[in-house]
Amino acid sequence: MTVHNEQRSWVESANGHSDFPLANLPLGVFSRDGDQPRGGVAIGDYILDLRAACEAGVFDGQALEAAKAASVSSLNAFFALGASARKALRGALMDLLAEDSAQRERLQGMGESLLQPMNRCQMHLPAKVGDYTDFYVGIHHANNVGLLFRPDNPLLPNYKYVPIGYHGRASTVDVSGSTVKRPNGQTMPPGATEPSFGPSKRLDHELELGIWIGQGNARGESIPIGEASSHVAGFCLLNDWSARDLQAWEYQPLGPFLSKSFATSVSPWVITPEALEPFRCAQPARAEGDPQPLPYLFDQQDQQQGALDIELEVLLLTETMRDKGQPAQRIALSSTKNMYWTVAQMVAHHSVNGCSLQPGDLFGSGTLSGSSADSLGSLLEITQGGKLPLELPSGETRTFLQDGDEIILKARCRRDGQASIGFGECRGRVMPA
Amino acid sequence: MTVHNEQRSWVESANGHSDFPLANLPLGVFSRDGDQPRGGVAIGDYILDLRAACEAGVFDGQALEAAKAASVSSLNAFFALGASARKALRGALMDLLAEDSAQRERLQGMGESLLQPMNRCQMHLPAKVGDYTDFYVGIHHANNVGLLFRPDNPLLPNYKYVPIGYHGRASTVDVSGSTVKRPNGQTMPPGATEPSFGPSKRLDHELELGIWIGQGNARGESIPIGEASSHVAGFCLLNDWSARDLQAWEYQPLGPFLSKSFATSVSPWVITPEALEPFRCAQPARAEGDPQPLPYLFDQQDQQQGALDIELEVLLLTETMRDKGQPAQRIALSSTKNMYWTVAQMVAHHSVNGCSLQPGDLFGSGTLSGSSADSLGSLLEITQGGKLPLELPSGETRTFLQDGDEIILKARCRRDGQASIGFGECRGRVMPA
Repeated sequence: MTVHNEQRSWVESANGHSDFPLANLPLGVFSRDGDQPRGGVAIGDYILDLRAACEAGVFDGQALEAAKAASVSSLNAFFALGASARKALRGALMDLLAEDSAQRERLQGMGESLLQPMNRCQMHLPAKVGDYTDFYVGIHHANNVGLLFRPDNPLLPNYKYVPIGYHGRASTVDVSGSTVKRPNGQTMPPGATEPSFGPSKRLDHELELGIWIGQGNARGESIPIGEASSHVAGFCLLNDWSARDLQAWEYQPLGPFLSKSFATSVSPWVITPEALEPFRCAQPARAEGDPQPLPYLFDQQDQQQGALDIELEVLLLTETMRDKGQPAQRIALSSTKNMYWTVAQMVAHHSVNGCSLQPGDLFGSGTLSGSSADSLGSLLEITQGGKLPLELPSGETRTFLQDGDEIILKARCRRDGQASIGFGECRGRVMPA
Repeated sequence: MTVHNEQRSWVESANGHSDFPLANLPLGVFSRDGDQPRGGVAIGDYILDLRAACEAGVFDGQALEAAKAASVSSLNAFFALGASARKALRGALMDLLAEDSAQRERLQGMGESLLQPMNRCQMHLPAKVGDYTDFYVGIHHANNVGLLFRPDNPLLPNYKYVPIGYHGRASTVDVSGSTVKRPNGQTMPPGATEPSFGPSKRLDHELELGIWIGQGNARGESIPIGEASSHVAGFCLLNDWSARDLQAWEYQPLGPFLSKSFATSVSPWVITPEALEPFRCAQPARAEGDPQPLPYLFDQQDQQQGALDIELEVLLLTETMRDKGQPAQRIALSSTKNMYWTVAQMVAHHSVNGCSLQPGDLFGSGTLSGSSADSLGSLLEITQGGKLPLELPSGETRTFLQDGDEIILKARCRRDGQASIGFGECRGRVMPA
């Protein structure tokens, strides 16, 4: 497949600063006016309707097979097809949507039956989530949270050997734009001798990279690190909403449960590994003196090219800011370079015990904070456990999220000589308990 | 509905000591000779084929609706119908299968097209598991495990307030009879400075009660404790296979992950709440001086009648015992009376933050050990962390499970004046890594 990273599209809004230029072509599931959700591809300000495209006969061969699988109400079957079908569809879409496409006039003639205006469509969860696993590979986050509990020894001894993860709740993964109802639960207030019950007072966001699993592995057979990347269908933004007061009281000895299971939000567009290929980099988060990964987690190519260079952003929009017409305020600027473990290492680790991964499984990376004060991916870190309120341009302060607050995650890839691509948004507004 | 607990069936093998007398009537999914898996009801040594029964026109009204929903390859749709439909089906089945049934001759005339010999059938997972949650409500287990790590303070401060649980892996829940491949993974051997990789050396079983969720709750709406029981579709035995050496190294700070996700086994028959009704009892595991449950976990009727009196058994059959023709050796006899929290409390807690439960979700109770040495539900407890080998009649000893070992869980309910019912078996044999 030819990569046309700087090529222009005849869809004018795809050229310039769009999150979705010709080089991106992410897949998602959309509907319009309450009709049946179906698969589409983002291009500029439009969504290419894959069902309409299939019916118009613009695909053939493996691209047609992939487009059909992606044209229904969830992308699981498309994910299951794997990399070769996905690349065939990408190649065909690039040819169709390029400025010099031979099909340009015909496709333009189809108007909105082919290209739906994105702002008139509703997005849905791109796949039915089988299992959701949340990792903890953001080393600065692990360190920052560890410092709050164990100032002398923030990183536990297993951290640089084990890509720490835990099982999350699949039934409460939502697409961006869904509201987040503040959870009720038990907390043990400081100094109290008995727990209280009520709405969480320490509701927080977590900035994470989401990973959609493509082809699975047979039960009992692990995925070798060298093949792990081929089991990834794509990427998104993920907000692992967390009730810190519930978490502090419940998490010993078996980990977070109700403090996380009320909601997890993901951005709707599945950014493909092909679109991210130009933004691969060497493993940046390992330091001099860190242990060598065990052999099942070590692959030379993964070390040299398996990490990702994606700029991540968290914005906060309060009710007051919304009322005053103020824009959302950026409260963190971070990067996927803060991942201590690569996505391939996460996949290899998860399956090394024979656990079967399945198409549509979702991974969260864990919170991706940087090392500086303006790069922290949760309010727990920004406010040092609620001690240092965050000051906002509206004159308000925040320790944790208040009802009406909206968190917006964004991501963008930039590299000289490459078309910059974006992830779209992962938005969620907090509603009262 | 009339309860005919001591009534006899015209299916002779259902009378006497069968796990599946007329008073039980559990549902499951079976196939024969590789044909399409479908729903059935256990009666004595037979499985009543629900599809055949529906086609024969023996049901009507709500019972027919329930039988149809339960006649397909998974019971999720049947679970979703809730208690009223389930009770209607139970009433109809009791009438059909009772010794004095008006339909007896006609049904007997259908032979194996209606009643399949159980020993010629294969059982399948009864439902597609959406999310699997493992609790920790066995107080003696929590205490015993706590003692191994914190001799002075075995139970953590949250234990008697919070029904502790964590998310498990849904994709690796298997039906009884599936083999369990010993998992590979990282461990930190005692005295070592770097972790090792290889097959787990401390593979263990855990004796648990499984709970199948029926009707779910809408997202954001919790299930009140008084209504929680009506969201339970049924019960099974569950073996939460555990790799203790992987667990010890990985579980801080986010809980068990790969040490559990390689396999979870469940018994195939879904024992209904109606069949267990005579074996309800008052909450037995709370002690004098224990705190009162918080209001969202407290219901008078649940305290008085919400616990279960089910006898639980663990048997071990080694390769050598199998070769010598020796029977499996009982290594534990315990009870569901060792649950500190009731199933209704688990349901109310799980949903109190607005988390949506769905038909086919599975809960594990956590290991149900008793307080005596012969009632311990895991080898970790029996051998005190591998220090005191278990001696077997074959002359062998075990600290943890060896390849070829088979663990068999059983359960039976007995009460004066009631027909005794059983759960069938939950079996799994360990295979080499």
